[in-house]
Amino acid sequence: MQYKGYAIKDTKKYTDFEVIDFKPKPFTEDDVEIAITHCGVCGSDVHTITGGWGPPELPLIVGHEIVGKVTRVGANVKDVKVGQRAGVGAQCFSCLKCRACKDDNENYCPDMVDTYNAKLPDGTKTQGGYSTGIIAHTQFVFPIPDEVESKHACSMLCAGLTVFSPLIRNGAGPGKKVGVVGLGGLGHYAVLFAKALGAEVFVFSHSPSKEVDAKKLGADHYISTGKPDFAKSYAGALDLIISTRDVAKDMPLQDYLTMLYVHGSFITVGIPDDPLPELKSFDFLANGCKLGGSHIGSKKEALQMLDIAAKKGIKPWIEELPMKDVAKAIQGVKDNKVRYRYVLTQDLA
Amino acid sequence: MQYKGYAIKDTKKYTDFEVIDFKPKPFTEDDVEIAITHCGVCGSDVHTITGGWGPPELPLIVGHEIVGKVTRVGANVKDVKVGQRAGVGAQCFSCLKCRACKDDNENYCPDMVDTYNAKLPDGTKTQGGYSTGIIAHTQFVFPIPDEVESKHACSMLCAGLTVFSPLIRNGAGPGKKVGVVGLGGLGHYAVLFAKALGAEVFVFSHSPSKEVDAKKLGADHYISTGKPDFAKSYAGALDLIISTRDVAKDMPLQDYLTMLYVHGSFITVGIPDDPLPELKSFDFLANGCKLGGSHIGSKKEALQMLDIAAKKGIKPWIEELPMKDVAKAIQGVKDNKVRYRYVLTQDLA
Repeated sequence: MQYKGYAIKDTKKYTDFEVIDFKPKPFTEDDVEIAITHCGVCGSDVHTITGGWGPPELPLIVGHEIVGKVTRVGANVKDVKVGQRAGVGAQCFSCLKCRACKDDNENYCPDMVDTYNAKLPDGTKTQGGYSTGIIAHTQFVFPIPDEVESKHACSMLCAGLTVFSPLIRNGAGPGKKVGVVGLGGLGHYAVLFAKALGAEVFVFSHSPSKEVDAKKLGADHYISTGKPDFAKSYAGALDLIISTRDVAKDMPLQDYLTMLYVHGSFITVGIPDDPLPELKSFDFLANGCKLGGSHIGSKKEALQMLDIAAKKGIKPWIEELPMKDVAKAIQGVKDNKVRYRYVLTQDLA
Repeated sequence: MQYKGYAIKDTKKYTDFEVIDFKPKPFTEDDVEIAITHCGVCGSDVHTITGGWGPPELPLIVGHEIVGKVTRVGANVKDVKVGQRAGVGAQCFSCLKCRACKDDNENYCPDMVDTYNAKLPDGTKTQGGYSTGIIAHTQFVFPIPDEVESKHACSMLCAGLTVFSPLIRNGAGPGKKVGVVGLGGLGHYAVLFAKALGAEVFVFSHSPSKEVDAKKLGADHYISTGKPDFAKSYAGALDLIISTRDVAKDMPLQDYLTMLYVHGSFITVGIPDDPLPELKSFDFLANGCKLGGSHIGSKKEALQMLDIAAKKGIKPWIEELPMKDVAKAIQGVKDNKVRYRYVLTQDLA
């Protein structure tokens, strides 16, 4: 079996994509093969091909917001059938045996395997979704509900799930006040899903231009963090804050912590390269607040998210491009111009 | 009404205690008056009278681990009677009306009042328990069970409760693995209560000399943090870590975070003056862990703690001194010589 994909061969030339052939992992009875029709463009793709998260193994095909048509299923696969639509997110394997894997935390398995730029136990180097196909273990393949179009579903599988999981795990729902820091790809999903879950949503952004979008997405409140003392009126008011900020420098983290109610959590899903602002134990004292992280989500949560998206008609804001225009999408993400997700459509198959 | 107490008049002379007279708050129908028989010596007392937490209002009587005999109760007081033993911890008032006060989080009320060096809404300056008596609102007065001696009960009301609350709130119990960082006054209580709650206890300390004590207190495991890579064998193993460290410098915080299982919390109850070690968002990613704080505990938790102490016969390790020897106790705490709590006994009344 042979697939084609748009690969990067040099991190310095991160917009020079070249079509290469590659072999997927050997097919097993636990696997699903998908003919890719759509792939979202994630910030991680840019971090990886520019070398920002360290030198990747080249040539590399990125993309981990994958949706397509199932072309083959192994004998042990239960929840998808040939011909059906299905997707793969940022993770394509885990050990399936450890405590985390057994309690629906396979996204925290110490042996988790990324969808691209990683190695499977069988030795196969993983390649991503800017390509014609993928073979993945059924645990990491999500059937797409009929009500959700592929162009909308694909970016849910990384960007959507990355914010949905901490929302669910930290109790976002009716009667809860949820802050969302930053309105980009992740942030716009955080607003959509926090609202869908019934929470009251507060968007914090330093760019006043985002207010209109925040409100259109459903946010109840928009707070410009450019104003001094912006946090004062919200002292102790929020139950949860999801931070999608990708840069830690000048982040008013202490201010955000003061806005949390007792034992409220500030969860960062953004992964800035730079360190967080300096903190003291004292910053956690007055409200017993918590600072934490989150890493994508479990299959259980992915299915729950897709179900909510289907029932509530949730549609991300996207711009579609043919896959050959991937360089334009990469540059748009890097320049923070995307509103709010690029979706590449198949043109190689 | 007039009480006597051992006061400090100059933070530079923090062992020069002088007996002064002072007036307590005016008695109301919600109040309890206690003739103090015992008072524990807390690290906070030292931080305060040395000026380490900022300049206190002088002259000041510290002490917030108070037990004595009830001498008067207001008409609205329900759970204590004259002649009974009762105590007061580090908090003597809160607004009693806000969200926190209404959901058993009065210890996080934004208007909470400290037992000493603070001001009550009626204008009274609060003075602590190195004295003959105290008047406090019944919400902050805890009846002491017959099975618990006063000398053992007093330091539970701050040191004990400070670790008991985060243990309870973060699910310490059978089947859970709890790490305790530092074995001092707070740490020794964390071991006692984590064991009483049924958890498996791991003590982390840089002083090898504490191993014998840790085991005697009931710890299941002792890990010397002096060894390089001490954290490696415990990656992802602990459900909760309670840190009682009072100094943040050189604290291997990242190492501690790696030892947590998915969404496990590192709760610091120590309040070092210096900032925490630098952290990146990345440090919270692999296990979705959380870093947080905690502030004493609620009355509900204090009563639960005292009940457990009564039923399980929990006894802190203490050294008793007459109150006139308070300077010796203060110096012993400052020099980190106490094993593990000084208790002052009344000699003024």
